[in-house]
Amino acid sequence: MKHTLSVLVENKPGVLTRIAGLFARRNFNIDSLAVGETEDPRYSRMTITVDGQAQPIEQVTKQLHKLVNVLKINDLDPATTLQRELVLMKVAADSSSRAEVMQLAGIFRAKVIDVSPQSVVVEVTGDTGKVEALTRVLQPFGIIELVRTGKIAISRGKQPT
Amino acid sequence: MKHTLSVLVENKPGVLTRIAGLFARRNFNIDSLAVGETEDPRYSRMTITVDGQAQPIEQVTKQLHKLVNVLKINDLDPATTLQRELVLMKVAADSSSRAEVMQLAGIFRAKVIDVSPQSVVVEVTGDTGKVEALTRVLQPFGIIELVRTGKIAISRGKQPT
Repeated sequence: MKHTLSVLVENKPGVLTRIAGLFARRNFNIDSLAVGETEDPRYSRMTITVDGQAQPIEQVTKQLHKLVNVLKINDLDPATTLQRELVLMKVAADSSSRAEVMQLAGIFRAKVIDVSPQSVVVEVTGDTGKVEALTRVLQPFGIIELVRTGKIAISRGKQPT
Repeated sequence: MKHTLSVLVENKPGVLTRIAGLFARRNFNIDSLAVGETEDPRYSRMTITVDGQAQPIEQVTKQLHKLVNVLKINDLDPATTLQRELVLMKVAADSSSRAEVMQLAGIFRAKVIDVSPQSVVVEVTGDTGKVEALTRVLQPFGIIELVRTGKIAISRGKQPT
């Protein structure tokens, strides 16, 4: 089962290394990780996606709590959180296929943000399912490059996550 | 000066730790970092934003090249790359202020993806300037929470980044 952990940390050098190291020592492969400043520049929030199939995720979260620069950890429930990621995709498209690529992108509410004679760059946000569906649909044209941010998440309602 | 590094790595446990450790040892504070799978699941791409004011970034990129799991490093030129990040923002808004918050979000082409009696959640993608402008505009209403992915980037034109 995939877990999405939201970890609030102090914005200091070395914090990321300690957290990444903790996962690596326990042999958890991090699927995606996104770190950025929060509303308060003293703190950063890391959103980490890991596969918790092999061993219980509680082993890691317990250890994370012990790190001095870690303030708060949440194992996010997909049912009560909004999860999104951003993907930039460069797709091969010339004058004969461009219209079709753009139409497919439009169905997924993806935006075309660059065009060249042989390619288009598509920007899309959504949950993992939507991103994967669009990738499948554009695959036959030839995906030259794909860059994704990894998932971030926020809880529904007024309370902070 | 801020640098945006795009680092193509093998998708293996421990790679992130080694890379983050390299920056920490040289006392570079990572502003943001986004890691996700590429079009080929054997590889991940890390987009790292660092401040290269204090010491030359070349010291780090040289060391990065020596790591076995690192395949390719690019110091991205903002003039020839498209840079985007995704932000989720929970803003205090009740029946008296909701309309104004939603109107302001609309101007920035941000999407409202959740509403509660006392809050809205806004999703926005763009470059750092746009994200910061929207944050400034919504600040007076009260930002309850802000989660950002960190920047990702892709080159213009047909060539891979």
